[in-house]
Amino acid sequence: MFKTVRGMRDLLPVDAEMMRHVEMVSRTISKLYGYEEIITPVLESYELLAAKTSEEIRERMYTFKDLGDRKVALRPEFTASVARLVVNKLKNEPQPMRLFSVGSLYRYDEPQYGRFREFWQANYELFGSDRPEADAEILILTNNILKNLGLKNYRFKVGHTGILRGILTQEGLDDSQQNSVRQLLDKKLWAEALDIAREADISQKGLETLERLLETKGEDALQVLSQIRECVKNYENALDAVDNLWRILELIKGSGTHLEVVVEAGFARGLEYYTGMIFESYVPGLDIALGGGGRYDKLIELFGGEPIPAVGVAQGIDRIVLALTKQKVSQKTAKENSVVVISVKNECMAKALELSNLLRKVGLPVEVAVMGRSISRALADANRRSAAYAVIVGPKELEEEKVVLREMKKGTQQTVLISGLTEAILSGSE
Amino acid sequence: MFKTVRGMRDLLPVDAEMMRHVEMVSRTISKLYGYEEIITPVLESYELLAAKTSEEIRERMYTFKDLGDRKVALRPEFTASVARLVVNKLKNEPQPMRLFSVGSLYRYDEPQYGRFREFWQANYELFGSDRPEADAEILILTNNILKNLGLKNYRFKVGHTGILRGILTQEGLDDSQQNSVRQLLDKKLWAEALDIAREADISQKGLETLERLLETKGEDALQVLSQIRECVKNYENALDAVDNLWRILELIKGSGTHLEVVVEAGFARGLEYYTGMIFESYVPGLDIALGGGGRYDKLIELFGGEPIPAVGVAQGIDRIVLALTKQKVSQKTAKENSVVVISVKNECMAKALELSNLLRKVGLPVEVAVMGRSISRALADANRRSAAYAVIVGPKELEEEKVVLREMKKGTQQTVLISGLTEAILSGSE
Repeated sequence: MFKTVRGMRDLLPVDAEMMRHVEMVSRTISKLYGYEEIITPVLESYELLAAKTSEEIRERMYTFKDLGDRKVALRPEFTASVARLVVNKLKNEPQPMRLFSVGSLYRYDEPQYGRFREFWQANYELFGSDRPEADAEILILTNNILKNLGLKNYRFKVGHTGILRGILTQEGLDDSQQNSVRQLLDKKLWAEALDIAREADISQKGLETLERLLETKGEDALQVLSQIRECVKNYENALDAVDNLWRILELIKGSGTHLEVVVEAGFARGLEYYTGMIFESYVPGLDIALGGGGRYDKLIELFGGEPIPAVGVAQGIDRIVLALTKQKVSQKTAKENSVVVISVKNECMAKALELSNLLRKVGLPVEVAVMGRSISRALADANRRSAAYAVIVGPKELEEEKVVLREMKKGTQQTVLISGLTEAILSGSE
Repeated sequence: MFKTVRGMRDLLPVDAEMMRHVEMVSRTISKLYGYEEIITPVLESYELLAAKTSEEIRERMYTFKDLGDRKVALRPEFTASVARLVVNKLKNEPQPMRLFSVGSLYRYDEPQYGRFREFWQANYELFGSDRPEADAEILILTNNILKNLGLKNYRFKVGHTGILRGILTQEGLDDSQQNSVRQLLDKKLWAEALDIAREADISQKGLETLERLLETKGEDALQVLSQIRECVKNYENALDAVDNLWRILELIKGSGTHLEVVVEAGFARGLEYYTGMIFESYVPGLDIALGGGGRYDKLIELFGGEPIPAVGVAQGIDRIVLALTKQKVSQKTAKENSVVVISVKNECMAKALELSNLLRKVGLPVEVAVMGRSISRALADANRRSAAYAVIVGPKELEEEKVVLREMKKGTQQTVLISGLTEAILSGSE
């Protein structure tokens, strides 16, 4: 018996529909915000994908040689592919440039709740603007998606890489030491992170600032930012970072968008390339982030392009689906006005097919009975499929240009003129 | 400079939009015909994918070992994955079962016009019915997609594997000999196919029948079928096949669907598992098929399941896009009523973001000016992006709850109340 490969999964109709629904809402939002969709290959050169990602991701890529002996891999994230495009084919496009990508990604992670080796993301990236309104847009857009999907009680964890960086740089830690601290913080290993700082000869004042900072978080965003500002008042660049985050959150609030925000001074996202605001979205009871993003102004340079500021977000489609399922947010099923068309005899089948197309033209989902069953068995099957209507096409009624229309739930039926069939169904289903 | 891997490609916004449009129409049609979407992984076990495919495809799969030393491959077609589902997870579902899948597939073919190593298909399969109305549905549905997309002059090449099989079986050729003949015919190597038949000791009468048959094709479907029937009159099973194809085409015609059909007696599709009607769709000037399918009643057995009759079609999304592009069938662009919102000063930015969301709520695509440019430069950029409207948010107008609305094409502008902004744009864009 053949099986899916470990970590891979099938989505059966109900799950697949939810997945596509989230994808669709993501795409609608991309259009409403002016993000143009691009499609890049699942298979890229290993060199590209490995270039700037974290070691953790690099080691878990599906890497192999193709039949032409090229070292290739399945993309573990969209970043490298989008950067490749921005550096090459899109380098002369006017800025700002808003790009949207959606599709499957691959990582050889240990399969666990909400984590698969094939997963889907919707990715939004805004290139060209270093201004806080660009950051605000990415947060507002993310809020818009989750809200449109009907998700409840979601919230945002927000931070700014510049706060930590400002302190550590002024304290003399080099990039590699700073990255170690950041990676440990990302894993919530605070004590270990402080150890690294200590080993790097951070000042006592610096250490105390860090310790206090890591404890600073809360839901009243502007109040927390005041505390952070007080805490880092001796670090000029850290203060700029606080002001930048303040302005971003102020813009969002001023635009009338209510975000449930937890500002966390010690929040760090694993990837090294973030340079400014960072965030993740969550729902209660689900430990993994639904999505996350931030500002990464150095990324395009890292891939060999001219420097372009950038801010973006990756929405985890599977995780959003998981959250929607957990919260029992269901979508309207397409079954509600579905029709089964049954031909009584072989010689009525062509007519049955014709009527099916007529109904589809006005948007009704129609299944033709193709098993050659008796009417009663075909009706029983229509019932099992939760069809709303059955149209029974028989020779006697056809002589008068009529068919039998049965309302499945009520179990009632009437003979209707074919010319009035569409209307009879549409008016009944409202 | 990083590049795409040979045979892979990027779809930039215009192409990506066309791709997604074809995908979307495919999905809409799947719903209208009652095909439920399933999503299977891109990565499957080599064993599954190699089990029943042709040697040609098997040799060109992207095959490798994952980090757990499992032999895996990227799917070269949907068939095996769908069959796996039908044999396992869906085996107790009521029949008929209509399934839809859409996604990317991978084959290490020589890249050429219209052929890439990553390509997209939309796949429709109807399981459970061996009746001609099921075959007819697949053809009507394919027609429906191509018609809805606005494609012109497309046509169908139609045949029936039972015609050739009926003759060759009665002439004593075994399965492997028959497959050789079929594969040569698929490559249009008629003389070589006849040689195989000769080597297999076909009778003189049989050889003459084959020769005549291979020349029989034409656009008047029912007339060609009469010729074929006359030609194969001594082969009982071949006659049944002709009658089956006749009935399928008669049903389609009777349903009021006009198909441009070329019936070709010698038409063979490469894959061994076809058992009945087979077809491909084409447009003039494009040598490759847009899609193809047919009946494959033995497939599920081959994968270890209970026998289930099946008929289906794979639509080549890239190829349809190619055909649409060739025919210059463009879709309505989303730009038509797009809006750029420009904030005159930093202190108006929050309001600009708020108004953007207001406009998006009624479905208008809105880009916020996030570059901090002067108004004149922001307007020039809006022009370059073919925006239909610009909304200019300034402090003076805001005092009176107003903004400036500019019609970009006309170059005219007026001050409007914020409360009437949405309506002003919606009424103007009709």
